Amino acid sequence: MFSKEDNEILCRVGPGTPMGKTFRSMWMPFMLPEELPAPDCPPVRVRLLGEDLVAFRDSEGRIGLLDRYCPHRRVDLFFGRNEECGLRCVYHGWKFDVTGKIVDMPAEPENTQMKEDTRIKSYPVIEWGGVIWAYMGDQATMPAKPPEMEWGLVPAEARFITKRLQRTNYAQGVEGGIDSSHVGILHSHLDPEHPELPFRQRQISPNLAIPYLASDTAPRFFIRPTNYGMAIGARRNASDEEYYWRVTQYLAPFYTMIAPLREGRAFMGHAWTPIDDHNCWVFTMTWNSDRPLDADELDHGAVHSEVTDDGTYRPLLSSENDYGLDRVRQKLYSSTGIEGIGMQDTAIQESMGAIVDRSVENLGSGDAAIAGFRRSILKLAKERESSARLEIADNPQWFRVRSTAAILPHGTDFLEGTAAYTKVD
Amino acid sequence: MFSKEDNEILCRVGPGTPMGKTFRSMWMPFMLPEELPAPDCPPVRVRLLGEDLVAFRDSEGRIGLLDRYCPHRRVDLFFGRNEECGLRCVYHGWKFDVTGKIVDMPAEPENTQMKEDTRIKSYPVIEWGGVIWAYMGDQATMPAKPPEMEWGLVPAEARFITKRLQRTNYAQGVEGGIDSSHVGILHSHLDPEHPELPFRQRQISPNLAIPYLASDTAPRFFIRPTNYGMAIGARRNASDEEYYWRVTQYLAPFYTMIAPLREGRAFMGHAWTPIDDHNCWVFTMTWNSDRPLDADELDHGAVHSEVTDDGTYRPLLSSENDYGLDRVRQKLYSSTGIEGIGMQDTAIQESMGAIVDRSVENLGSGDAAIAGFRRSILKLAKERESSARLEIADNPQWFRVRSTAAILPHGTDFLEGTAAYTKVD
Amino acid sequence: MFSKEDNEILCRVGPGTPMGKTFRSMWMPFMLPEELPAPDCPPVRVRLLGEDLVAFRDSEGRIGLLDRYCPHRRVDLFFGRNEECGLRCVYHGWKFDVTGKIVDMPAEPENTQMKEDTRIKSYPVIEWGGVIWAYMGDQATMPAKPPEMEWGLVPAEARFITKRLQRTNYAQGVEGGIDSSHVGILHSHLDPEHPELPFRQRQISPNLAIPYLASDTAPRFFIRPTNYGMAIGARRNASDEEYYWRVTQYLAPFYTMIAPLREGRAFMGHAWTPIDDHNCWVFTMTWNSDRPLDADELDHGAVHSEVTDDGTYRPLLSSENDYGLDRVRQKLYSSTGIEGIGMQDTAIQESMGAIVDRSVENLGSGDAAIAGFRRSILKLAKERESSARLEIADNPQWFRVRSTAAILPHGTDFLEGTAAYTKVD
Repeated sequence: MFSKEDNEILCRVGPGTPMGKTFRSMWMPFMLPEELPAPDCPPVRVRLLGEDLVAFRDSEGRIGLLDRYCPHRRVDLFFGRNEECGLRCVYHGWKFDVTGKIVDMPAEPENTQMKEDTRIKSYPVIEWGGVIWAYMGDQATMPAKPPEMEWGLVPAEARFITKRLQRTNYAQGVEGGIDSSHVGILHSHLDPEHPELPFRQRQISPNLAIPYLASDTAPRFFIRPTNYGMAIGARRNASDEEYYWRVTQYLAPFYTMIAPLREGRAFMGHAWTPIDDHNCWVFTMTWNSDRPLDADELDHGAVHSEVTDDGTYRPLLSSENDYGLDRVRQKLYSSTGIEGIGMQDTAIQESMGAIVDRSVENLGSGDAAIAGFRRSILKLAKERESSARLEIADNPQWFRVRSTAAILPHGTDFLEGTAAYTKVD
Repeated sequence: MFSKEDNEILCRVGPGTPMGKTFRSMWMPFMLPEELPAPDCPPVRVRLLGEDLVAFRDSEGRIGLLDRYCPHRRVDLFFGRNEECGLRCVYHGWKFDVTGKIVDMPAEPENTQMKEDTRIKSYPVIEWGGVIWAYMGDQATMPAKPPEMEWGLVPAEARFITKRLQRTNYAQGVEGGIDSSHVGILHSHLDPEHPELPFRQRQISPNLAIPYLASDTAPRFFIRPTNYGMAIGARRNASDEEYYWRVTQYLAPFYTMIAPLREGRAFMGHAWTPIDDHNCWVFTMTWNSDRPLDADELDHGAVHSEVTDDGTYRPLLSSENDYGLDRVRQKLYSSTGIEGIGMQDTAIQESMGAIVDRSVENLGSGDAAIAGFRRSILKLAKERESSARLEIADNPQWFRVRSTAAILPHGTDFLEGTAAYTKVD
Repeated sequence: MFSKEDNEILCRVGPGTPMGKTFRSMWMPFMLPEELPAPDCPPVRVRLLGEDLVAFRDSEGRIGLLDRYCPHRRVDLFFGRNEECGLRCVYHGWKFDVTGKIVDMPAEPENTQMKEDTRIKSYPVIEWGGVIWAYMGDQATMPAKPPEMEWGLVPAEARFITKRLQRTNYAQGVEGGIDSSHVGILHSHLDPEHPELPFRQRQISPNLAIPYLASDTAPRFFIRPTNYGMAIGARRNASDEEYYWRVTQYLAPFYTMIAPLREGRAFMGHAWTPIDDHNCWVFTMTWNSDRPLDADELDHGAVHSEVTDDGTYRPLLSSENDYGLDRVRQKLYSSTGIEGIGMQDTAIQESMGAIVDRSVENLGSGDAAIAGFRRSILKLAKERESSARLEIADNPQWFRVRSTAAILPHGTDFLEGTAAYTKVD
C-alpha cells in the first residue's frame, strides 16, 4: 500500500518540496517554439512547478523566463511590451532583459542605484529538440545539457511534438503512460456486427498486426531499475519456446515511451511536465529514428493534440462535456464511447480527481510498472535530499534509449535480448 | 433560540455525523425510475448524504448503487460500460455486479485471489411506490421496507412524482414544506385592478374556495408529536362556535404533506432528500387516494418540475437569473414577481444561503411547526445515538397518514376530530 | 519596506478591523441616484465594507439601507416588495421602513410585542452632491455632514459622476489615483510613423499642451501631510529660474484628485469605496468649478464608465478577456494596447491580484505619494483606535480643496505658491 505521506511527496512540486527540489535539479520541457514564434512577439504566461512566470523572445531571438510580477509594484508582466531586447512593464516602464537585469527605469532619476540593486527572478532557458526547456534550480548546479532523448537528437523533419493541458497531477499522467495493461481495454474497439456477444469476445485489439496482444490480455510484467529510471518488460506467450516481449521505459522524472506496433514505424513518447500540483502539460513526441515522418505517422501523432487554438492548449473536450462520451458508440463500437486515444487517457486520468488518493487503491500484478515508477522517483527525491546535484542530471547520455518489441526464446533476459534495439547511438 | 451547535447537528449529513447516522438507518427515495429506464441503460452519477455514487440497472433489470470510484485505481465508474449483468470500469476492465461483487478482472491472471478479496462499496436499492430507494446503513439493521407513504400505496396511475434540485440543506426544504403561514403571503396573487390599494387589501388567496384562508392570515398553530413525527393543526375562525382546521404532517426524517384545497382533489407532499450538506432533491408527490389523477391534478403537480432535460434536474430558473423575477409582475400581479409555487419556494429558501444561520432568527407564534420539526428530528438523532436501530424505521405502517381540513366545534381536539380522515387504511 | 502586518491593517475593511472602524466613522459614497430612480422602485443589492445590505427608495422618496437578510427567517430582502413606505419580505410579509422599524407582521397576532422588540440593522443615508452616502458607524458619533468635496458643492449641471466595479482592494485604487509618475508611461500614445525608434523616443505625452510633462518623465515628488490627508507636489523643470508644479491631493479615507491639463477645463477626481476586502467601486467625478460641463468634458468623463447596463456596473472588459489587449495596437499606437485610460488603470491594478503583497515591492523616489498615503491612512486608523470619533469626520470643510498646476519661481513653497488656486470657497 502506498501511504498518504508518500502520496504527498510524490505529488507536491512547489518550491521547497522534495519533488519540487528534484525537478528543479533538471532541465524540463515546458513550451513549444511555436508559442514564441518570432523576435519581439507577445509575451506568454507560464506556470511551472507552481510558480507564475512570463516567457518572451527578445529582439535577438533569445528567450527569457521571468517572474510574472514586476518587482516594483507587482504588476503582471504579461501586459508588458516586448521591445528592443527587453520586456517593459507598462505601469512605470521598468524594463528587463532575458537574464532578469533591469535595463530601464524611466520614472526614476537617470543614475539611480536601484537599477543595479533590484533584480527580477529569472530562469535559464534552452531551445533544443523541438521544445523549450527551463532550469529552475540553483545556478551553481545547473546541468550542462537537457537529457539526450532520441526525439531531441533526430532532425526536425523526423519528429512531431504536440502539447495539451491535462487537469491532473503529473504522476497520474506518468502512470497512465507506463501502464500498458490498460491498452487492450481502454483503447479497444468492439465488433459492431455482434452486439449480442460478451464484451471480451467483441474486443478488437488496437493493432491487428500483433496477434499476441489480443490473445493474451494479462501479460506478465517485469520491472528493471536502470540508470535513467526503469525498463518495463511485458511478456506474452508467442509459441511453446518463445515469448513476445514489449519493452518500454520510464525516464526520470516524467518521461515515458511506447514501442511502435510495427517495425520501422514511428516511436511515441510523452513528457508530463508539472504546471502545478493539479495540472500538467502532456507533450506527445512522435519520431522516426531513421527517416522523416510520413503522412500516416504525422496523422497518428496529431490525435493527441485536439486543442483550442487560443494558446491555452486546452483540449476541445473536457470533464464539462464528459469528453464527448457517446453511449451509443460505447454500446456498439468502443470500450469508452470517447473518441481518440489521447482523450480516452485524459478522461480516465482526470476522472480520478487532480490528485488521486493512492492509499485506497488495490494494485494487482498488472500494476507492477506503476509501483516501480513510484519507488524509482521517491528514490530520486531521496538522493536529492542528500545531494545538491543529481547524477542523472549530469548524465544526459543515459537517456539514449528507445522502446522495442521482440520475440525471444524462453530463458533469455529481456533487457539483454533487446539491448541492440533499445540503444540509441 | 436555536444554537449554532444544534444547527450543525441538524444540517450535517455526512458519514459519522449524528444526522448522517439517523438518515442511514432508514430507506430514502433518491431517484426516479425514469432515470434508469431500461436494462443496461447508461449509468447515472448519484450523490447522496455527501457520498459520491453511481447507479445502474443491469441486464436483468436490477439496480446497483456503487461507490463512484473503482477500487483498483479510482477511476470514475460513470464512464463505465453497463453490460451483461455488471458495470465494467473502462480503464482495466474490472467489472462489478449490483451487489458490489467483482465478476471480472481481465488484466489479472485468470484465478487471482484479488477477485474474491476486493469489493466495492455498494448499497441496497428498492424500487417501490414510483421512486427508487436506497439504504445506506449497516446490513444488520436494514429495515424490512420503506415507510408506507400513501403515495407509494396507491396504483401508479393515481400518483405523479417529480424531482428537482434545490441548492440548500434539506432542513430548509422541510421547514418550507411545513410552514403553512407563508402560503397566503409568498404564494398570493394581487388584484391587478387596484394597484393603489394597500398590499394586504389586494391579496387574493391562492384558493378562493376556502374563505377562511383569506379572512384569517394569522392562524394559531398547534403542534402534536406523533409516532411518525409531528401533526400540525392550523386553526382559523369559521363561525362563533366552530374552527376551520387544516391538519398537515411532518414525517421523519424529511417528508411533508399538504391538505388538498377541496375535498376529493389530489393530496400533495414532498420528500427533501439530502444530496449533501448544501443541496437536496425535492421530490413532489401528487396523488389521489380514490382514483387515477385527472388532467387538472397532473397539471398542478407539474408546476413543481420545470427542470432542464439533461438529467441534472436543475430548475430552468435559478439564483443566476434571480428566478425570473419580474418587478412589473411583482408590482401588479403577485407577491414575488416569480412564476410558479415551486420556484417561489426555491427562490426564498435558496436566498437564505445553503445553510441558514438559525441562531440569528426571530421565530414567532406562526413558526411553531418549524420549532416542532427541529425538536422532533433532534430527538430522533438522539435516539439513534443510543440505539443501532430506530423504532420508526421498523414501523413503516406508522407513515399511513394523510393531511386534511375540517370544520370542528370549539373544544374538539383537532387530531381526534380528524382521525377518520387522516388515517390511511 | 511595508510589512505584511501593516498590509493587513491597510486592506481589511470588515466590522471590527482597524480600517473598518475608521471607514465606519465617516460618510461614504456608495451609490448613484440613478440606481434608485423613483419612489417604490425595485430594491438594490448593496455590499459595503464586507456587509450585505439592500437599498430601497420608499413611497416618499426616502432611501433605506437595511441588512440584506430578514431578521425573521433570513430571507434575502432583495426579493422583497417595495410598497407603501416600506420594504416587505415576501416570505411571511414582515415589513420594514427606511429606519429599520418593523411596521407589519401579517402572520403574527395583531398586537404582538415582537413587532416592537425586533429590529433590522439599518444605516442612515444621505443624498448629496450627485451620490448617495451611507454612515455605518455608531449613531452617537455620526458626523453632521459628508465631506464638502467641490464636486458636491457645484450645481448638478457642472458635474458628471460615473461608477464602475474594480476587482481589487480600495487601497490599490487610491494608490493608482495618486501615482502621477505612471501617467506618462501607462497612458502614453506612441508615434505610429516610426515603429523603428526606441520606445521612449516614440512616446507622445497624453497632453501636448504641457511640454514639461514630456520633457521631464521623472519629476521630483514632494509630499505634505494636511488636515484632509496629503498634498502632492510634482516638480518639473520649466526654465532656468522656474519649476512647473502639479499639485494633487489625497483626501481621507479614499478620495483622489487630478489637476486639469488646461486652465479652465474640468477637474477630475475619484472615490474608491470598499465593497469588501477584494472589490471596490470606482466613482469618477468630473466637474467644473465655474460653469456647466461642456460636451468635451462630458465625453472625457465618460471614458471611465464603459460598464454593462444590468445594474452591476461591471466593465465590459475584464481579466477574462485580458481587457481587450490588442498586441498590434500595443506595438504601434499605445503602451498597453488596451483602450481607455480607465481600463488601462483597472487592468494594471487588477493584474496585481485583489490584495497586492506590499512587503515584496521595491518603491523608488517616484513612489513618494504611495508611501505618504499609507502613512496617512494608518495614522488615521491609529487615531480611531484611541478615539470614538475622527476629527476629520467632524470637519467637512477641510475637504474644500482642488488640484492645480502652476509655474513657480525656484524657492517658492509649492503649497504657499498655489494656495489661491487650490482653495475652494
